[in-house]
Amino acid sequence: MITTKEKIEVYYKKLFPITRSLTGNGNRETIRILNEIINLNVSEFPTGEKVFDWAIPNEWNIKEAWIKKTNGEKIIDIANSNIHIMNYSEPIHAKFKLKELAAHLFYLVELPNAIPYKTSYYHRNWGFCLAYNDYKNNFNDDEEYEVYIDSELKEGSLSYADYCIEGNNRNEYLISTYFCHPSMVNDNLSGVLLTAFLAKELSKLTLNYSYRFVFIPETIGAITYCYKNEVKMKNLLGGFVVSCVGGPGKFGYKQTYLKNSFIDRIVDYTFSEKGIDYLKYPFEPQGSDERQYSSPGFRIPVGLITKDKFHEYEYYHTSLDDLSFAKPEYLLESLKLYLGVIKNLDANHNVVSLNPNCEPQLGRRGLYPTIGRRTIKSKSESYNELDVILWLLFYGDGSLTLFEIHEKTGINYAKIVDAAETLRRQNLINLIPVENRGEN
Amino acid sequence: MITTKEKIEVYYKKLFPITRSLTGNGNRETIRILNEIINLNVSEFPTGEKVFDWAIPNEWNIKEAWIKKTNGEKIIDIANSNIHIMNYSEPIHAKFKLKELAAHLFYLVELPNAIPYKTSYYHRNWGFCLAYNDYKNNFNDDEEYEVYIDSELKEGSLSYADYCIEGNNRNEYLISTYFCHPSMVNDNLSGVLLTAFLAKELSKLTLNYSYRFVFIPETIGAITYCYKNEVKMKNLLGGFVVSCVGGPGKFGYKQTYLKNSFIDRIVDYTFSEKGIDYLKYPFEPQGSDERQYSSPGFRIPVGLITKDKFHEYEYYHTSLDDLSFAKPEYLLESLKLYLGVIKNLDANHNVVSLNPNCEPQLGRRGLYPTIGRRTIKSKSESYNELDVILWLLFYGDGSLTLFEIHEKTGINYAKIVDAAETLRRQNLINLIPVENRGEN
Amino acid sequence: MITTKEKIEVYYKKLFPITRSLTGNGNRETIRILNEIINLNVSEFPTGEKVFDWAIPNEWNIKEAWIKKTNGEKIIDIANSNIHIMNYSEPIHAKFKLKELAAHLFYLVELPNAIPYKTSYYHRNWGFCLAYNDYKNNFNDDEEYEVYIDSELKEGSLSYADYCIEGNNRNEYLISTYFCHPSMVNDNLSGVLLTAFLAKELSKLTLNYSYRFVFIPETIGAITYCYKNEVKMKNLLGGFVVSCVGGPGKFGYKQTYLKNSFIDRIVDYTFSEKGIDYLKYPFEPQGSDERQYSSPGFRIPVGLITKDKFHEYEYYHTSLDDLSFAKPEYLLESLKLYLGVIKNLDANHNVVSLNPNCEPQLGRRGLYPTIGRRTIKSKSESYNELDVILWLLFYGDGSLTLFEIHEKTGINYAKIVDAAETLRRQNLINLIPVENRGEN
Repeated sequence: MITTKEKIEVYYKKLFPITRSLTGNGNRETIRILNEIINLNVSEFPTGEKVFDWAIPNEWNIKEAWIKKTNGEKIIDIANSNIHIMNYSEPIHAKFKLKELAAHLFYLVELPNAIPYKTSYYHRNWGFCLAYNDYKNNFNDDEEYEVYIDSELKEGSLSYADYCIEGNNRNEYLISTYFCHPSMVNDNLSGVLLTAFLAKELSKLTLNYSYRFVFIPETIGAITYCYKNEVKMKNLLGGFVVSCVGGPGKFGYKQTYLKNSFIDRIVDYTFSEKGIDYLKYPFEPQGSDERQYSSPGFRIPVGLITKDKFHEYEYYHTSLDDLSFAKPEYLLESLKLYLGVIKNLDANHNVVSLNPNCEPQLGRRGLYPTIGRRTIKSKSESYNELDVILWLLFYGDGSLTLFEIHEKTGINYAKIVDAAETLRRQNLINLIPVENRGEN
Repeated sequence: MITTKEKIEVYYKKLFPITRSLTGNGNRETIRILNEIINLNVSEFPTGEKVFDWAIPNEWNIKEAWIKKTNGEKIIDIANSNIHIMNYSEPIHAKFKLKELAAHLFYLVELPNAIPYKTSYYHRNWGFCLAYNDYKNNFNDDEEYEVYIDSELKEGSLSYADYCIEGNNRNEYLISTYFCHPSMVNDNLSGVLLTAFLAKELSKLTLNYSYRFVFIPETIGAITYCYKNEVKMKNLLGGFVVSCVGGPGKFGYKQTYLKNSFIDRIVDYTFSEKGIDYLKYPFEPQGSDERQYSSPGFRIPVGLITKDKFHEYEYYHTSLDDLSFAKPEYLLESLKLYLGVIKNLDANHNVVSLNPNCEPQLGRRGLYPTIGRRTIKSKSESYNELDVILWLLFYGDGSLTLFEIHEKTGINYAKIVDAAETLRRQNLINLIPVENRGEN
Repeated sequence: MITTKEKIEVYYKKLFPITRSLTGNGNRETIRILNEIINLNVSEFPTGEKVFDWAIPNEWNIKEAWIKKTNGEKIIDIANSNIHIMNYSEPIHAKFKLKELAAHLFYLVELPNAIPYKTSYYHRNWGFCLAYNDYKNNFNDDEEYEVYIDSELKEGSLSYADYCIEGNNRNEYLISTYFCHPSMVNDNLSGVLLTAFLAKELSKLTLNYSYRFVFIPETIGAITYCYKNEVKMKNLLGGFVVSCVGGPGKFGYKQTYLKNSFIDRIVDYTFSEKGIDYLKYPFEPQGSDERQYSSPGFRIPVGLITKDKFHEYEYYHTSLDDLSFAKPEYLLESLKLYLGVIKNLDANHNVVSLNPNCEPQLGRRGLYPTIGRRTIKSKSESYNELDVILWLLFYGDGSLTLFEIHEKTGINYAKIVDAAETLRRQNLINLIPVENRGEN
């Protein structure tokens, strides 16, 4: 593995301060930095363009936003944290009493030091987010507050980026992440960086399947990507939405909508192969971009491996989801796991015996003992290579994949992959790329 | 509901005394009285007509039947109860010693005050039924008995009636009952009246599906109805045989031959929705007209909701199954339950999203919060309307019905039906009539 | 049954001394003796002929083989036991010190009185097998040993035999056994004789299905048979490999590769019908000729009923597997069981009602009570003939077999077979030969 904790830290620090949203220059800057890791293919789509039931919204950029007391003291300023501004706030410059301002202030009584993260993408509005403790100290009914938001909401474009690895076959898996969140780490700088580093790691390997890495703003970006790449997306075998992979907590897995596809079963296998215990979340149509990918028109089975999943950790969608909470070493753990999963997924093939009628003569290929044996079975005995070979040849009618043969026989998947490679080299089997999603 | 206990009582009293059988004037009189409740379509089929493997039998009518002692005392007389005569008895006038008469007398030692109900439809015979206590008191070996049966068995016709409600779509359910039993209430005046009142209640509603109500003599009537309406019957989605719905005992349900069709699952759901515990009877090819409807050529999944099911209650097929045993209020309970089942069945549709590619933009239809939320999950949380909407849109590929979505998600069926109606009004989904029987 | 313990004993004694192998005159002599029991159809295939991935090997015959000490004492001599010689040993005449001889001597330390059975069919080699106790007594480092093997390995042919019984229909089952083992009884003189006697027993009966009995050398023989009879073999419904059916131990059953085909379920049923407890061995692609028959190109579900299965008993593949170990009475038990299985298999048919629309009128065929009954159910009640008839007519859409109706209803299979025969005689159903393998 070429990714290191130090490299992750460098990029966390570069990307953290940038103000990102559905659209805008912060997104373009983010893509530019990711381009240092892998060579991304970037696209822009103009405001107003129809994408299925939606339209690309106005582009939003913001320069300055603050609230001042009458004494001139800035009590909120996005110079301190870009989470202070409700994302997609419209411009305003006016004075308000607290009474009028109240509907535009957001804080969390239950987490008094955290600035909550708020958006109002499709309904014209403005607002400030702040820690409840700051709210209590700085706001009262008598004071008059000067509110200033120097934002721009006008025709522009939505940006996204992708990166494709072509494997030995064209059957493709999706790795999708979203970069629309401003200064929060677990949700979702962690996902963005894992995806970039995973792409880089995989680009160094010889792969059987193809992989499509997608960097988009959540929801509208996924919808736009599906719209612009409809045929390719509808042919995907499955994939992952990379979200919240950098927290200190336990690993988790949100199932694909199929619950029991190859993706799900191979993730489960990889966790147990590595001895990692994890939380299992059933599929539901709330969540991240799996909402779009799982919709009736696409039905891509996408799973989410998480480390402190959205909706589940206390600092979720607040300013406390920062670099002291979500450390580079956590991301590294997630990356290793993802690499293991892809390795197992990539090895899976349907097996077709090239001598389907009776057994091939293994002896003349050095795969069978030359002297007849007298074996009395013991209970504890495990599978030797000949057993594995015979099982592979027996199942070699093309209907099962190596992973399914592992499931049916209980033989270790790695042993099966190795024996299959032996048989392939001997021209005894073909390994055919998996075309189905393993529903069962 | 427009049906009352009092109305049920009126019709119980009108219908109870009539002598009914497979054929005959009592059946016509019964149909005439039911016609006061709903406007029936009546048919007659002549003796001898072939219906599948059967033929319409001779019509049977009876005027008088008694047994007299030599002293002129009538010890049995159908003027007292029409159950005294074995149904389809041939005429006779002769004197017998008990020895010769014995094979023609039927009583129940284990229920000594009850007159048993007997028939001999297809084998020429005659007989009297009486309480065992009366048998003991009135019969001895020395006496000579004068037997008189003034019955007629000759060419005539078989009568049945039906009533159809056309719903918004032509997919049809069957509600079938039999009226061939003479003076017994639970089996089956209760079924006959429930069917008539259910038809009346449903005729006041706007229904999605169509409903066919069938009033026939058991077996030969069902066979004739199937023969005469073969194509329509073979296209039915399912239905019910209404039998024994007026007893004082526990509710029961005899499954359709499919065991787990929509009919079965929706009945089960309706019982639990209403908090009613019930006995479950597995399908078997003994029973009532489900025998015909479930036959290989028809395969209509029909269930039976019962309150004191045939073969299961002590007074079954005896004179004790009378108005003091099977009271109007029991019938009213069964009617309410049937109405609940039909309501749930009628609401079930396949769901097809009109925006299958990614999610539709719910925000601009007022179905989505305008400000992004930060939700931390709690365990006890139940489904809100947005959750239900997202599940419906996710499943909206036409393959599942609302009831199946309830089963898959665990979300309350009524909530699902409501949310589907919201989405339909917003032009976001189509609700397609169910075409299949829900086998799973 | 015409087979007796005494007859088995006669043939055990005739066949035991013969030196058999993949090929050779011992095999021809074995077939000649089996021909006394049933009239076999014999085939020969020349050395070098390609059979799928294999080729017919050279024919092997042996006249003499021994090891002498320098004092002229023969310390091993195949005149005493043909197991002494490693099967397919090439000719040699030379003197060796123990050091050079060691790699050619085979014994079992854990079973010091047993001569192990060894083969080297496809790798030119020679060897002697002996009891460990004899090894210890007769061999030492100083002595020089004269080794003599007068064997012949040259172009010839492979012999096999088969026997076919044509039943009322052409759907065929396989009964396959192998005769390549020299003087060992349970493995597999027992299998060879059971197959011959089973063929003889069945040839005396009127059978519904056809049966193919195959006598071959293991592996190369099965492969040759599959190659020469490819179409017929690929159309087989299923069958048995008859191996190790004559030991003193418990009955066992190795499942077909389908695990749950008719073969498997009917074997299980027959064991329980006879009250016999048995060991169940899951399918695995190690074993006997089920390896070939189960291969992707053939996929014949073959099961193995065993009595001391290969790999499982201590004397397996040794000289101790002799007539004192595997007695004629054990074989007789296995034969009875096989006959029971075939009887049950042969009775199984799909049921098609000739009156699929509603019930046929059973009354006029004497199959229905003429007087209507009043039955109150009791819990303990079992199925009467009318119940069985109604279930058969209900299921009579051709999709289920009699055995499956037994499984679905829990009604005794023999009762079902009897009732089906009654209905067939009354022209109420057709019994259609089973075409599928009962996978479920």
